[in-house]
Amino acid sequence: MNLDHVRIVLVRPTHPGNIGATARAMRNMGLSRLMLVEPQDFPSDTAAARAAGADDVLTSAEVFANVADAVAGCKLVVATTARPRSIGWPVETPKAVMPEVAKVSDEGEVAMLFGQERAGLSNAEVDHAQRLIRIPVNDDFSSLNLAAAVLLVAYELSMAGGDIPATHPEEESPEEEYPSAEESHFFYEHLEKVLRAIGFLKPTASTRLMRKLVWLFTRARPSIEEINILRGILTAVERIDRKNNNKNKAQ
Amino acid sequence: MNLDHVRIVLVRPTHPGNIGATARAMRNMGLSRLMLVEPQDFPSDTAAARAAGADDVLTSAEVFANVADAVAGCKLVVATTARPRSIGWPVETPKAVMPEVAKVSDEGEVAMLFGQERAGLSNAEVDHAQRLIRIPVNDDFSSLNLAAAVLLVAYELSMAGGDIPATHPEEESPEEEYPSAEESHFFYEHLEKVLRAIGFLKPTASTRLMRKLVWLFTRARPSIEEINILRGILTAVERIDRKNNNKNKAQ
Repeated sequence: MNLDHVRIVLVRPTHPGNIGATARAMRNMGLSRLMLVEPQDFPSDTAAARAAGADDVLTSAEVFANVADAVAGCKLVVATTARPRSIGWPVETPKAVMPEVAKVSDEGEVAMLFGQERAGLSNAEVDHAQRLIRIPVNDDFSSLNLAAAVLLVAYELSMAGGDIPATHPEEESPEEEYPSAEESHFFYEHLEKVLRAIGFLKPTASTRLMRKLVWLFTRARPSIEEINILRGILTAVERIDRKNNNKNKAQ
Repeated sequence: MNLDHVRIVLVRPTHPGNIGATARAMRNMGLSRLMLVEPQDFPSDTAAARAAGADDVLTSAEVFANVADAVAGCKLVVATTARPRSIGWPVETPKAVMPEVAKVSDEGEVAMLFGQERAGLSNAEVDHAQRLIRIPVNDDFSSLNLAAAVLLVAYELSMAGGDIPATHPEEESPEEEYPSAEESHFFYEHLEKVLRAIGFLKPTASTRLMRKLVWLFTRARPSIEEINILRGILTAVERIDRKNNNKNKAQ
């Protein structure tokens, strides 16, 4: 995936705030090439304020007189629609189409078209596209903010490309080590021994309760480090129990 | 999935515009239960304007003094974070966690916490949660608008609702009852109290070790019956410890 090959094209956007919020959403997802077709109010301080630091996207944004010019030279054009269209085309989801966008971006330029806040894209504008997508939203409240639509499509693109790592390196746990079956068994023996010592498991108790505990810990799948913490707790309990017993003897 | 069981909790939101945009994003994804913890400016005309028709979410929003009250009665609490946290918990993606949220919402209430625009959630607030998620964004521009974060998480939830994995009968009996977040919290309090009493947790200990234990048990997802067994063990340890202390006094 080459995000520098991906153009976000806003067609006749009405509110400069939406242009700014779009710039911010684009940068959040690693995109930077914004194209505006006949924006009503641009450049604008409102756009800059809502960009919240993504001003570079606004300053490098290009303004065009029509969609044809904005998508010139693109190998793939994707149009978004908020409403059903009877143009004989399948309307797909962003999730379905973004893998293709990611792939084509390696070879050449790609554009994604977003229509005006209320009216959307005209059918003539959609004709520039080879793919038509609709973001799945609640049918009872389908009015999606323009920048929100860009955000969701850009998010699916980033997920499809795998460019943005799911976890950050510093958050990734160092390769967790897991105990062998034998080591787990030693832990359960230790646990049972302590539970008997403190009188929680009666001498006549069936194995049922112990099995429940084994099943509980099995589900958690403790790492070696965690097993050591648990055994540390058992040892601390044994220490208290031993002190108590020594005093019993002393009395 | 039962979206009526899903609470979106904004903690100390600063900008009323973000509250309105959150309401709109929620309705786009079929959510309607908004909870606000100490909002700086609410109700507000700015919020209503940005809600763009999702006013019902705003008028039915509930305001709370703290996170504990906002998540009371929840079976699962998910916290969002925009920054790495060294609390010994894995930070997961919304995509990884939303299937669980969808599933638990069938049984009871779920809350998703979003922190203040700049500061995020405090560690004490994150402690109310059993899962921690971070939206994968561009490392060089990770400042995500509050309503954008809600939108992306709600989007992944709505996507997850479609393909909830079937539970394997041998893994979970349907009649199993699960504790609320509150009941789980009581168990962890009990555990910490006992670990301090027996000297396993030093008075000066950081919360790191305790968090590791919480994460271990969270993974196992104990049923109410299992929580009762674990608390029975804690009570047995307390009994031994008390005897021991009484003898210390007697000597």
